[in-house]
Formats: sequence, C-alpha cells, structure tokens
Amino acid sequence: MAGNAALSALRAELDETVLVTDPDSTERFAHDDAEWAPYGKPLAVVRARSTEDVVAVVRICAEHGVPVVPRGAGTGLSGGANAIDGCVLISLEGMNEILEINPREQLAVVQPGVINDDLRAACRERGAWYPPDPASSPWSTIGGNVATNAGGVCCVKYGVTRDYVLGIEAVVGAGEVVRLGRRTAKGVAGYDLCGLFVGSEGTLGVVTEITVKLLPGQRAPERTVVGYFDSLGEAGEAVANVAAAGVVPSALELLDQHCLRAVDEWKNMGLSAEASVLLLGRSDSPGQAGEQEVDALLDCFERGGATWSARSTDQQEADALFAARRLAYPALERLGPVLTEDVCVPRAEVPEMLGRIEAAAQRHDTQIANIAHAGDGNLHPLIITPPGDDDARERAQAAFDDIVADAIALGGTVTGEHGVGLLKRKGLHSELSSKVVSMHHDIKNALDEAGIFNPGKVFGTPES
Amino acid sequence: MAGNAALSALRAELDETVLVTDPDSTERFAHDDAEWAPYGKPLAVVRARSTEDVVAVVRICAEHGVPVVPRGAGTGLSGGANAIDGCVLISLEGMNEILEINPREQLAVVQPGVINDDLRAACRERGAWYPPDPASSPWSTIGGNVATNAGGVCCVKYGVTRDYVLGIEAVVGAGEVVRLGRRTAKGVAGYDLCGLFVGSEGTLGVVTEITVKLLPGQRAPERTVVGYFDSLGEAGEAVANVAAAGVVPSALELLDQHCLRAVDEWKNMGLSAEASVLLLGRSDSPGQAGEQEVDALLDCFERGGATWSARSTDQQEADALFAARRLAYPALERLGPVLTEDVCVPRAEVPEMLGRIEAAAQRHDTQIANIAHAGDGNLHPLIITPPGDDDARERAQAAFDDIVADAIALGGTVTGEHGVGLLKRKGLHSELSSKVVSMHHDIKNALDEAGIFNPGKVFGTPES
Repeated sequence: MAGNAALSALRAELDETVLVTDPDSTERFAHDDAEWAPYGKPLAVVRARSTEDVVAVVRICAEHGVPVVPRGAGTGLSGGANAIDGCVLISLEGMNEILEINPREQLAVVQPGVINDDLRAACRERGAWYPPDPASSPWSTIGGNVATNAGGVCCVKYGVTRDYVLGIEAVVGAGEVVRLGRRTAKGVAGYDLCGLFVGSEGTLGVVTEITVKLLPGQRAPERTVVGYFDSLGEAGEAVANVAAAGVVPSALELLDQHCLRAVDEWKNMGLSAEASVLLLGRSDSPGQAGEQEVDALLDCFERGGATWSARSTDQQEADALFAARRLAYPALERLGPVLTEDVCVPRAEVPEMLGRIEAAAQRHDTQIANIAHAGDGNLHPLIITPPGDDDARERAQAAFDDIVADAIALGGTVTGEHGVGLLKRKGLHSELSSKVVSMHHDIKNALDEAGIFNPGKVFGTPES
Repeated sequence: MAGNAALSALRAELDETVLVTDPDSTERFAHDDAEWAPYGKPLAVVRARSTEDVVAVVRICAEHGVPVVPRGAGTGLSGGANAIDGCVLISLEGMNEILEINPREQLAVVQPGVINDDLRAACRERGAWYPPDPASSPWSTIGGNVATNAGGVCCVKYGVTRDYVLGIEAVVGAGEVVRLGRRTAKGVAGYDLCGLFVGSEGTLGVVTEITVKLLPGQRAPERTVVGYFDSLGEAGEAVANVAAAGVVPSALELLDQHCLRAVDEWKNMGLSAEASVLLLGRSDSPGQAGEQEVDALLDCFERGGATWSARSTDQQEADALFAARRLAYPALERLGPVLTEDVCVPRAEVPEMLGRIEAAAQRHDTQIANIAHAGDGNLHPLIITPPGDDDARERAQAAFDDIVADAIALGGTVTGEHGVGLLKRKGLHSELSSKVVSMHHDIKNALDEAGIFNPGKVFGTPES
C-alpha cells in the first residue's frame, strides 16, 4: 500500500526516463559486487539527474515510510548498496559532473557519480593529485568511495577517502538539503558531521555533492621494488620488517600464487612461474631519500626470506605488475563466486594473520587466495568456491567466520576498507561493544527519524 | 539541592585529595585562557587520577542532573572549558601518563593530561614523530587538543589533531566506558564515532585515553625562508602566491608589527626595527626537492612585494624567529585583555581578509594585532583593549563581530582551530544552517540523555 502510494507520488514528480519500475530493468541495479550477499526486489529505481530529484525521492519515501537505498557504480564488496524489498534505489551514476578543480585552494568539487579515475585524470591535467585509489578506481564512483570510506593502494602513505573529504552536500531527514564540512584548509565550527557521513554507507542520508582535498600534482617518479617468496609466512615477515624499519612506502602490496595463477590464466602474464608469493613495494620520496627507501625495502624483503628481490629498472614492467594487482580480483571472480574478506590487523601481526588464514583454509578444506594492502595490515583473503557447490559454500562461510574472529583476536578490525554492508554485520557486532552499537542506533534514529535510509545495513542485526 | 546530594555522593566515593570544594581553590580551575569569556561558580573540582574517578563523577552527575565540564591545562582560547554555575569540573591534568609508544605500529597511547611537547619529545626518543603543534604545545594537553581538534604551525603540510587520532576511550551517557576508533592503520566498522568526539569540546563525554598515529621520526632538516614586508596586504599577496604556485611548505606563519613590537618589549629581540610584517616559511622536503621549495617560496615572497627576503643560513636565528611566533600571544596578553579571533578563509582570500581586518580596526577605532597560520588561511586577529576601558571593549566586540561576518562572506569559517566554546557561538549560528544546528542538537540529545556534558557550549544559543 505504502509502496503503491509512493509510486504514484514518484510518477507525478519524476520524468519517465528517470523513474524505472520494470522488474527486468530494475534487477541490474538491485545488487553490488558482493556475490554472497542477499538482495531484495526494489519498488523502483530512480536515475537521479540532480539534487532536486533526490530531494523528491527522499521527501516522498519519508512520507510513505519506504526505504531509500543509494548506489553508485555497484562495485561494492559487502552488499551495502543491495536492494531491500520494496525500496526505492537511487542511482547516482548520472550525476557525474566535475564541478570545480581548484589547484590554488587544493580542492575539487564533484557530483557523486564521477568515476574515481576520471577525477584523478582531470586533476592531473590541472597539476593536482587526488590520491585515494581503490582497486576499483576505473569503475567505482567518488560517491561510493565516500559511502564506504574506500581505501586503496596508496593509503599506506597517503590515507583513505575520509582524509580527503572536506565537505559534502547531502539530502537528509524528510528531504532537507544540508552542507556539512567546509572549503577551507581547517575548520572546527561544530561536530565533524561531514566525517560522520563518510563511511556511513547511506544510512544517514544521500550524498549529492562532494568537496575533496587535493595534493600538488608534481610527484617524484615512483621506484618499484619486487620480491619473490616461497611462502606467505616469509612474505609476511618482510612486511613486518618494513614496519619495524620505520619505512613508509607509497605502496606495499602482496599477491599469492592463487592470484598470480588466476591473472596468468586470464591475461597470460607468466607471473606464477616466477614466485609463490609476490611483494610489490614502491617509494615516491624524491632524490636520495627515495634511494634510501628502496634500499631499506630490499633489505626488509631479503631478511624476510625473499628468494629473489630487486629494484625494477623497467617502468613498463613495474606498471604491469601493479596492473596485475588490480586485475587479481576480477581474475578470481572468473573462477566462481568469491567471498571477500577485508580484515585489517596491526602491522606486526601480518605474518601471524596470514598463517591463521592458511590454517582456516586447511581446516575447512576450502581455497583461499590472498591479495593484501600488506603495508597497512589490510588483508583480502578471497574464498573461492566452485559454482553450485552448496557444501563448499558452507565450508567457505565457516572459514570466513574464523578469519573474522582471528582478526579481532589479534587486535584488528573486521573491515579495513570495504565497509560492513550486509556481509560484515555479524563481525561488527563481535568487534564493537553493545554500548557502542547502541550509540550507532541512537545517532541513526536521531538523524533518520523516518527510518528510511538503507535500514538494516551496517549495524542492523543479521538474520543469520 | 541536586548540588548538595551530588556533593554528598562524590564525597562518599572520592578521596579528599581528589575532590576540591573550597571556592578559593576551585576558582583557578573555573576558566580557560579566553579572557573575554564569562564563567560560573563550580560546585566542585575533581582532580581525576583514573578512568574510574571519571566514571564515578559522570554516574553521580547523571543521576543528579549536574553539569560536567572536563578540562585539561586551561590554555583554551574560546571558553570551552569554562565553569557553568553548579557544575563539576573534571581536571584531567593528573592523568598524564604516556602508556605506549609503538614505532612499529606507528602509534602512541596516552592519558589525556599528557602535555603536547612531552609526547613529542618522548616520541623523538623512540624515532617517531607526533606532528600536531599548537602554539600552546609547551603547556596544553593532548586531551585538550583532542577536545578542540587543535591545529598548529605544521598543519599546513601535516594536518590537524583529528588527522592523528586513531582511537579514544571515553566515559559517556550515565558513566559507561566505551572504546571508539581503532589501533589498526585502517578500519571502517561502523560510524566514525572517534572522529565525532574529536573537536566536540566535551559535549559528548569525557575522553580518558587517546591513541594517536605517529609518523617516522627521521625528518630532513627544515630550511627557513624569511620575508619582510611593509604592509599586511603585500604579505597577504605573498601567501596567495604560495598557494597559486602549488607549493606546500611545512610552515608559513605571519606576524605583524604589533606582535613584533610586543615580543620586542618583552624579550628584547629587536624584530620590529626590521619589518612591519614578517613572513616565516619552512620546507622540510629532503634534498633537491627542498631546495626547489625554498626557491619557490623566495620567488613568491618577492613577487608579493617583500622589501627583503632570504633563506636563513643560521639555524639558531631561524629557531629564534619561530620562538618569537610562539611568544607573540603571551606577549600581547601582557598589554591587556586580548579578544582572540580564529577565522579561516580560502587561501586566495588571505589578502582580502587581512584588508578587511585592518578596515574593521579603523572603523571601530581599536587595535588589532595579527598572527596567522597564513598558509592555511587561518588568521588570528587579536583585538587588544586597555584594561578597564569599557568603551574600548564595546568597540572591540563590534570589530570581532565584523571580522566573523567578513570571514563567512568570503567563504570561510568562524573558527579554524580554537573551537567554538562560548565566544564563537553566535558565529557558529551564522555559519551553519538551522537544519545543521538542529542535527547537532539531535546528536547531542541522543548521546547525552541526561544533558550533563558541557551543556550550552558550542551550539547552545548565546545569551548575548
């Protein structure tokens, strides 16, 4: 009933090209890239063109008590953008204008649908740099990056999305438009509500504009260090060595044999013949300082037990290795539904955590591939099951739960950068005290009186 | 009545040395360093030794509806820590232990009463660096820095306190102890409640432990560039040039003739004979990159109209200039009650804003000295009045209000780093929309059901 009334109201206000209700057409918007997360049937999809469209949707949905689920490109890995039965999905892909790039003020203003790589390229042309670079950067949107507080390869030195969001425009409550944050370098007038919205996965409102901080575009060329290892444990030791040496590389990525083989099978790069585990380090410090970092990284790799390690002298080869890193996830997806982990542990615990992941794979007789933003302690064990094998799925889920428990036991978190969405809700309830969870509910209820913004996600109680 | 009952309960739970009720003794805790802000008579001061002491106070105060005002060293400049009539002040100065310095995980854990400079010195000994450096760093506490999200000299390149707070322990609600944030490099499990507490000026709870992020301690020696200018306008142009050139110095500070003269009169440094306005720039980039930044800064200073500019070759002299910067505020305080501004404007608007400050001084026949974190656009016009001159105070207040209005008109904020406290409440209500202010109340009411945490501060309606 509420659905029908809301639909009539939406039809009265929105253009036919904007409002999509045909189930065949809405289906493709109904889920993100978390293949294991459930999703419902949306009432409608609104392909928003403007803040006004979003206001209309929020106003009508608040009036009728219909859930609102915002989404960007749908590259999320935890089900945060998945449809709830009877919800209105707001697709923000069409709001993809870069409104301002201002190198003098070191900021850019964008609509939420701008693709991450497109923003970086446009900034480069103006002599500025937008650092956050999730592996999904060719496809994911800034709005989605803000919703999940996305990380990436350069975070180990340059921080995550939140560190670059200065201000937002959002549609909140019953359709009010608010501006949170600032355009100035500093500002402490009131609570950091902008920061509260970053990483809130659409549960507090719909972000319709984003002001991001930029860094100067002139960067020293990156030097790349490559290490081959026989085992995850040895590569993990090398990572712990880097932390202990006080070196902050501009990237420190790990790929294991499962990833290397999957990339080889797809792109024929010949990586898996060389190493069981690959560590890729980078330094972007200029001049002598960069040379010293490269030497320190090589020393850390060797002391960790690298069978071979060297500074890459061929920029094309170095770029190809990082491209392989980016392709690892889609390459693995070709093999079957991937259950994606995203734990983050203290740097010194990386070897121990990698060992526990291997043990979980053995214990539950399941295949686990490892990609990692190793320098951050942010590990992505990817659990792979043959399509249609229900028993394997159960074993995979058991391994997933063990890995989450191990990460918490080692002083880590259940999600370093993908967000909680649907998949990590049980983990969140294990990680946070009940009082902290109730603070989440208190804030959500205070800011979302109608209870319409992505209800049940993040800190909602999971059914299973 | 509530006060008497609360006092009895506090007496029953707390040691005599911890609970201070003698009015002569409580008076010195009753206000911070904002000389113009009003303050009330506290019911008692609790010199907390532990989280348990804080829990006892919060529990008793929540039960009896007595306001709780946390304070560090009392170096705040906006009245945020000022006593409310009948409140219990919790002094956290005694909780001053550094609990952990962990260079491998790039973090430190401290109690809130640790002095900023003491933390930095202890980190240096362990090969790590804690960057945030408010001018009050020899006296102010990390807890106070967290409460106000304090800035400082190196923020222009290295960010503010919030950028370094990974996690906190806080006493909230009716005395519950919560841990917010994390110890890992990344983490997105739930809302950024830790970030929400940073800069909340004691209105959401009492912070009893802080985990901060550290950077590696090995830094290149800083190169210092000095510029003399005949006018604020020309120095402002030099600052705007630096922003336009895309240079990010590790410091860019401005002192005008009033500040230079006040420091000279106190410390006899002979600065004011040399220049009307002094710009101090620094670069800490290593090697050739640092040389290039120094050259670029000199070029920006010269194009701005410097009468003299040079790279300092004498490290002692350079350090003395930055020491003068730090002394400017106490030096001016010797001349009479200082009304401190803290506006922050877009970098390109620095010359315009400096011009408007001069105009406000003339229009209201009042003396305004200028210190500025110029590279951030964060200006501190300091309005000085002769002691006991009521008419001058009124003119000063009128100039203060004009400057706040000008900052907002130029796209700036009323407070860059000092916090709102009592002095900037009117400004906050001008800067934020009524919906955004009501979101503050909603969050405050949701997390502070008893309404006891520093009520009326920040976004409360000012009486005048």
